[in-house]
Amino acid sequence: MSGPLSHFDSAGSPRMVDVSDKPQTLRTARAQAVVRMPAEVLARLPENPKGNPLEIARIAGIAAAKRTAELIPLCHPLPLAHVDVELGLGAGAVRIVSSVKARGATGVEMEALVAAAVAALTVYDMTKGLDKSIEIAELRLLEKTGGKSGAWRRAEAASQ
Amino acid sequence: MSGPLSHFDSAGSPRMVDVSDKPQTLRTARAQAVVRMPAEVLARLPENPKGNPLEIARIAGIAAAKRTAELIPLCHPLPLAHVDVELGLGAGAVRIVSSVKARGATGVEMEALVAAAVAALTVYDMTKGLDKSIEIAELRLLEKTGGKSGAWRRAEAASQ
Amino acid sequence: MSGPLSHFDSAGSPRMVDVSDKPQTLRTARAQAVVRMPAEVLARLPENPKGNPLEIARIAGIAAAKRTAELIPLCHPLPLAHVDVELGLGAGAVRIVSSVKARGATGVEMEALVAAAVAALTVYDMTKGLDKSIEIAELRLLEKTGGKSGAWRRAEAASQ
Amino acid sequence: MSGPLSHFDSAGSPRMVDVSDKPQTLRTARAQAVVRMPAEVLARLPENPKGNPLEIARIAGIAAAKRTAELIPLCHPLPLAHVDVELGLGAGAVRIVSSVKARGATGVEMEALVAAAVAALTVYDMTKGLDKSIEIAELRLLEKTGGKSGAWRRAEAASQ
Amino acid sequence: MSGPLSHFDSAGSPRMVDVSDKPQTLRTARAQAVVRMPAEVLARLPENPKGNPLEIARIAGIAAAKRTAELIPLCHPLPLAHVDVELGLGAGAVRIVSSVKARGATGVEMEALVAAAVAALTVYDMTKGLDKSIEIAELRLLEKTGGKSGAWRRAEAASQ
Amino acid sequence: MSGPLSHFDSAGSPRMVDVSDKPQTLRTARAQAVVRMPAEVLARLPENPKGNPLEIARIAGIAAAKRTAELIPLCHPLPLAHVDVELGLGAGAVRIVSSVKARGATGVEMEALVAAAVAALTVYDMTKGLDKSIEIAELRLLEKTGGKSGAWRRAEAASQ
Repeated sequence: MSGPLSHFDSAGSPRMVDVSDKPQTLRTARAQAVVRMPAEVLARLPENPKGNPLEIARIAGIAAAKRTAELIPLCHPLPLAHVDVELGLGAGAVRIVSSVKARGATGVEMEALVAAAVAALTVYDMTKGLDKSIEIAELRLLEKTGGKSGAWRRAEAASQ
Repeated sequence: MSGPLSHFDSAGSPRMVDVSDKPQTLRTARAQAVVRMPAEVLARLPENPKGNPLEIARIAGIAAAKRTAELIPLCHPLPLAHVDVELGLGAGAVRIVSSVKARGATGVEMEALVAAAVAALTVYDMTKGLDKSIEIAELRLLEKTGGKSGAWRRAEAASQ
Repeated sequence: MSGPLSHFDSAGSPRMVDVSDKPQTLRTARAQAVVRMPAEVLARLPENPKGNPLEIARIAGIAAAKRTAELIPLCHPLPLAHVDVELGLGAGAVRIVSSVKARGATGVEMEALVAAAVAALTVYDMTKGLDKSIEIAELRLLEKTGGKSGAWRRAEAASQ
Repeated sequence: MSGPLSHFDSAGSPRMVDVSDKPQTLRTARAQAVVRMPAEVLARLPENPKGNPLEIARIAGIAAAKRTAELIPLCHPLPLAHVDVELGLGAGAVRIVSSVKARGATGVEMEALVAAAVAALTVYDMTKGLDKSIEIAELRLLEKTGGKSGAWRRAEAASQ
Repeated sequence: MSGPLSHFDSAGSPRMVDVSDKPQTLRTARAQAVVRMPAEVLARLPENPKGNPLEIARIAGIAAAKRTAELIPLCHPLPLAHVDVELGLGAGAVRIVSSVKARGATGVEMEALVAAAVAALTVYDMTKGLDKSIEIAELRLLEKTGGKSGAWRRAEAASQ
Repeated sequence: MSGPLSHFDSAGSPRMVDVSDKPQTLRTARAQAVVRMPAEVLARLPENPKGNPLEIARIAGIAAAKRTAELIPLCHPLPLAHVDVELGLGAGAVRIVSSVKARGATGVEMEALVAAAVAALTVYDMTKGLDKSIEIAELRLLEKTGGKSGAWRRAEAASQ
């Protein structure tokens, strides 16, 4: 809890961090989300003879990652080198893991979280006709590398 | 579980729903999200002598709701009549409730969920310098009204 | 050739058409594009054990239709009621047909053409590693209905 | 035909290419499109005493190139160093050539193709009041330089 | 000064106005801006043998009006029926007048102001190589009609 | 007045400047705008018990700076390293100063001006219910550094 609130200036007002003096280095981040749904809804997802709702969610997540700086006010725009989103069917949930890479002066944690969130919301959009109570949970960072603060990995890594 | 998967055609491929024959009626939706964080981080949020990180998250959520159809591939663009996002400090969490209204041929559930999700992600962006393990959970619809399927309200309404 | 150049004012300068006096009626349009490629490239498209490049192109076309007014300077923004894009493998080409519906004061021809064009460009993006000379052709309107000018259908309808 | 389908992973699913290890080098691309129209429509284009529809199409093409990564799902965002679009009146057609330059880890072929396509669609938008059957064709890459695959030039260069 | 601050709720927090109960009526607005520049710079604007910087500014203003709700956080998205921007050379200034029309539940004042502002900024972008001290002034509403507050016209109408 | 009109080619047509040969160096710019309003309106701005309209305008300005290349047709997209906007209450006006930094091949003057303009327009949006005649003025560059043309500072610097 010793770190500073980096987005806040000395007077306490939230600010965009000035990264003009930071070197451009490789940054990576992975994030996850789960979309919890009844087994009956889950069972119908792979029934599609052609087309795949998880594929649409994957594309939506990748596209959203590229627009992170438009959605999150104090985020820096960043030319991303790679974005991927994987979706799988688990017990009572669609499980989503996103990964993002860029060479830049700032991290890509927000890009990974936006990708996971929008992929999850897209799954909800395609299943809400069956069950409106479906819920998105465990939207969180799994891992990051690069930058002055270095590598970080979520403790309860088993949960993914 | 009897309802059809409205976004899927008879061959099972995910589709945008054709709403050209539906009447334009008033639609509303409310959604929520929580951002779970340690008490120490939570305590620092209102410390700001000027400026307010929750206010920035509120504006980000409102702005994102207006761009829902750009983020969710099979969503319809809709001229929104009202969007609001409320953020409050609860026990171990920032609690977010969004509400959206529009007159249109399709519902505004996705707009409410996108508003809550982006407000939550913006809170994360401003607190991640203190604790990267902060998690977003309970991203879900609370209520909707209007349209052929009529009103729906989450059973465990107490949880909000 | 008797019709006026509707986007030009009396002095000849291109203008956005004023549709504030036009009634809101149902408008539809269908457009097509073909992506011509060697048989060897075409043969590799359906080889994918999972995932489908044509599905990505379909989603890209639908998403682009919703942003037509951002791309075409004198186009009106329009809340679309339906967009779909179908892609099929033909002789030496991927064949794309888009369809768009809206209730509005102006037609949806441009939305249908943008959907077909962006779907075609997305196919190119995914196959250019195999053959950069792949070409997009026959990007054209097939049909429109609604509005003062009424229905129109391409003469050489056989070509689709 | 020996090259790999770079956008597909080993399991065959379409992916964004990971360019985090590629050097930032100068990339250029040129693309073209033609908008075929009857001589009578073509003759009316330069009649404008003030204003110029081709100028509007040129600006639309330049603006669209900058948004390529928003339109094409698996494209990387790239800070472009230069975009230009030239439009000329030919025999029975408006001929469009676009050129794009950037320093980056990935090529700018898609940006050049998007610029040519949107310029062509904008010409269509301004002439469709005269003739809805106007068609866009020969949308294709003319040339590219830079990157590991090096320079490439369309064989039938005479056709432009 | 008796009117309420419509964007603020009873607790004083800025809010998006709820227009879900307002009827859809015709709204119009006109706004202006001036770009003040030395006579020598002004003299060079019409020198262009082909192309016209004022035409580019006009298109930029029209395109920006369509994106007003993305730029101004508490603005409602609105399907615009007409946007135009006129630019003329005056004494020591480029003078810009924009006009916007829509049928909707809210006014189009912000759309007209955004159109004038972005047209003015585009003029600055194309002349800043000659003189960086060029200034934009008198960015203001000229007139509006429609809505509950009815018609309003700027007193010093002579100034345009 | 000796400098060339950098956005115009030898034939006089406005062009995007080719910056592919320019080095990536640190660029900064500061710009300002004032929103002139009656003392009675100005007095009501800080009355808000919670929330702050100037804070919303600040966030809107920062977000708009990141989208400059989408608004100004011949501007280059640029990964910004820092954006800030300060708003203060002066005599009969809200005074706005923006500052932008980036490492790139082109300057950030337009980004700073867009930030100041959109912050000013957002103030107008929130006060127009009180007085529609509120005017935006003195939208201008204060200072820039970096690039071949080096540092520039507005002469009448006292005016800010």
